[in-house]
Amino acid sequence: MKKIPHRLYLTEEQMPKQWYNLRADMKELPDPMLNPATFQPVSEEDLYPIFCKQLAHQEMDGTTRYIDIPEEIQDFYKMYRPSPLIRAFNLEKALGTPAKIYYKFEGNNTSGSHKLNSAIAQAYYAKEQGLTSLTTETGAGQWGTALAEACSYYNLPLTVYMVKCSYEQKPFRKAIIETFDGHIVASPSSTTNAGRKILEKDPNTTGSLGCAISEAVEKAVTTEGCRYVLGSVLNQVLLHQSIIGLESKTAMEMLDEYPDIVIGCAGGGSNLGGLIAPFMQDKLTGKASPRIIAVEPASCPSLTRGRYAYDFCDTGRVTPLARMYTLGCGFIPSANHAGGLRYHGMSPILSKLYHDGYMEAVSVEQTKVFEAATLFAKQETILPAPESSHAIRAAIDEALKCKETGEAKTILFGLTGTGYFDMNAYSSYLNGTMTDTVPTDEELEKAFGELPKIPGIQ
Amino acid sequence: MKKIPHRLYLTEEQMPKQWYNLRADMKELPDPMLNPATFQPVSEEDLYPIFCKQLAHQEMDGTTRYIDIPEEIQDFYKMYRPSPLIRAFNLEKALGTPAKIYYKFEGNNTSGSHKLNSAIAQAYYAKEQGLTSLTTETGAGQWGTALAEACSYYNLPLTVYMVKCSYEQKPFRKAIIETFDGHIVASPSSTTNAGRKILEKDPNTTGSLGCAISEAVEKAVTTEGCRYVLGSVLNQVLLHQSIIGLESKTAMEMLDEYPDIVIGCAGGGSNLGGLIAPFMQDKLTGKASPRIIAVEPASCPSLTRGRYAYDFCDTGRVTPLARMYTLGCGFIPSANHAGGLRYHGMSPILSKLYHDGYMEAVSVEQTKVFEAATLFAKQETILPAPESSHAIRAAIDEALKCKETGEAKTILFGLTGTGYFDMNAYSSYLNGTMTDTVPTDEELEKAFGELPKIPGIQ
Repeated sequence: MKKIPHRLYLTEEQMPKQWYNLRADMKELPDPMLNPATFQPVSEEDLYPIFCKQLAHQEMDGTTRYIDIPEEIQDFYKMYRPSPLIRAFNLEKALGTPAKIYYKFEGNNTSGSHKLNSAIAQAYYAKEQGLTSLTTETGAGQWGTALAEACSYYNLPLTVYMVKCSYEQKPFRKAIIETFDGHIVASPSSTTNAGRKILEKDPNTTGSLGCAISEAVEKAVTTEGCRYVLGSVLNQVLLHQSIIGLESKTAMEMLDEYPDIVIGCAGGGSNLGGLIAPFMQDKLTGKASPRIIAVEPASCPSLTRGRYAYDFCDTGRVTPLARMYTLGCGFIPSANHAGGLRYHGMSPILSKLYHDGYMEAVSVEQTKVFEAATLFAKQETILPAPESSHAIRAAIDEALKCKETGEAKTILFGLTGTGYFDMNAYSSYLNGTMTDTVPTDEELEKAFGELPKIPGIQ
Repeated sequence: MKKIPHRLYLTEEQMPKQWYNLRADMKELPDPMLNPATFQPVSEEDLYPIFCKQLAHQEMDGTTRYIDIPEEIQDFYKMYRPSPLIRAFNLEKALGTPAKIYYKFEGNNTSGSHKLNSAIAQAYYAKEQGLTSLTTETGAGQWGTALAEACSYYNLPLTVYMVKCSYEQKPFRKAIIETFDGHIVASPSSTTNAGRKILEKDPNTTGSLGCAISEAVEKAVTTEGCRYVLGSVLNQVLLHQSIIGLESKTAMEMLDEYPDIVIGCAGGGSNLGGLIAPFMQDKLTGKASPRIIAVEPASCPSLTRGRYAYDFCDTGRVTPLARMYTLGCGFIPSANHAGGLRYHGMSPILSKLYHDGYMEAVSVEQTKVFEAATLFAKQETILPAPESSHAIRAAIDEALKCKETGEAKTILFGLTGTGYFDMNAYSSYLNGTMTDTVPTDEELEKAFGELPKIPGIQ
């Protein structure tokens, strides 16, 4: 048994030089995306107007197991990676648990989260193709910040459609995205047809990721040399984020450890899909059988209360359809919900794995999440993002179960980022005004009623 | 020549187990502190009502070269240290300089800065002595956050007097300090005699560190079981911060590098004193002769425009007197000045070294500082604190000189922290409303006129 340090950093030589494509090891691939006009499976070429070519290729590639990380991206990664694998000695002590808790901390870069891992890859491929601008959406703002950083690095003009309630809750996110030359539009806006239609229907809407995606896609396809990029949900994003899991696994091997339980928060699935990738590989290939747990907010419970169905990826119904766990593309989580994890659907890869029984899911209420967040901050000296704190909550709950049973399980969770821009939410938790807003069954049934009808499929 | 990684982390085994006390190698010690009533040199015992005993001892100890870091503090350090030494490859490229630029990054912990290094030490010694509460002041808020973290770790109630203009500029600092159970009072306040006196004289004052110190000291000496702690200026703080320099030197040795120039921002001197400690040792003992540069804001230029004189450490004139470069304890920097580095004086150790010619000093205007900050952020993916960006400015200027002369000098600077709570300042820079407010000679002469008269000395 080796001496366990508090923080383990790999050396640059140990950093992954390839991403891992989880689809190559899945028994059954996720169902194909469908063209929204014809309901036929989309081809790689169908995606070219939306995504740059290399990313469209990565999106469709279900067979190549390992994909080389271009050297330029490796060099960029070295500016902020490897991220540390941290043993939560103090949290364990505070809980009095025999469990060993590890977390992979992705917050040590200015985007404040893991989002930079895919942002730099997407900006790189766009630049390589000679594109001249990009659009995207952002919810909590971490993705918008990460992409602004990446685009600023490559001198690529960027327009960010930011979900209106986040835009209002987080004034300083605007400033940091602008520091990296990003142009921000509060969504829904009157700058696009999709935005105008949504505003016409509900002028007071607080917005949703689905609305913002519609606007960003419309802007991309109607602008010369412009493409759209997305920070989660997509296969390509999970591919880029596999670096989180690959580093984690190497680090745990150095410590002669293997997780009994792997836990990640889940909104669109980018962090969870990346963290679990090599552990899910072990599970799919019969090498190991860790429990894998997705943690989602009770206010936006796509896995635990959604339908596994074909749905649009956006609210304006212009994107291809994906089969995924979804609350319906018109679902808008309560504006009381702080932070991100507010997407109506879930990564098709993760949806399929969950559907096929390889993964568990739990939902947690945000007051319980912030209780975990403040305990964690005091013990581990890191102020976690609300999103990441969903994983902390579940990790604490599993560690407390170990306390009851006396089992010394090894728990690994993803600490995706920091909460410096979420102080309004922390304040509302501290002063007791934070509430939990969970959708009623009736609200969900109504949203499900608007799922697209697809002849012969659903 | 070894391969230079982007980021070098020492292992836990390589982390310093002792702090280095720079005074032990100084040819002449700084002049002693004086009792404000008798003008006689203070004894260790004189300090007991203000500081806990171990810290009073460290404050007075000018001879012990190395001081063991208690194991409990070493363990806490391991939660967020070692901090990385980073090679600024991208910044070098953007500047087109032959210089090699390294920086020691202290921002990867929730306090967002190096301040935690001394905060945890001071909280530890207070707890060890059985004290039941602490008080302090904070300017930009980094020290207040760090100490709140440390006190929360040891369950020590903490009251933080926060300079009023920072309190108003940085609403979220309040929330984060409260997350760690710190109690915040905007200073000057009506909760102390010192505060009431200052408010009576100028009801609209925006406050200063000197005012806040007066209030925090008064509260400490009038409360049972309470002591005062300070985040900069003091000998004990520079001692704790020596871990920055010790780690930096070890890391540079591993790279077969030695800095030609060491650069740090300077407010009270905690970061600069810590960073330069082992390099200054080499200079004092004749082993090497690096240039050492303090960078201060033009709006609060204690080294470059101050007097080397005995002065009070606070505005209310209740603390012992220290001989240091000072602008006068009544000096209040313009409220336009963003961020920290707003103390009227400078660490007596650094003042003495500067006076004796071992160190250079420059002052920079904040618009130039933010210009450097945004360039750095875009190239290095770290959003620097305004304070730290003073050092970036000077490092860039030195690197540009190298570009002119063609010299490949090795530059090391201290990147003390991150700017996530300074987005108001970034916004005002970006939208062009940031101004530079430099005190006039008349204003300084007026402040110097209020320096204390000490019979037989000044």
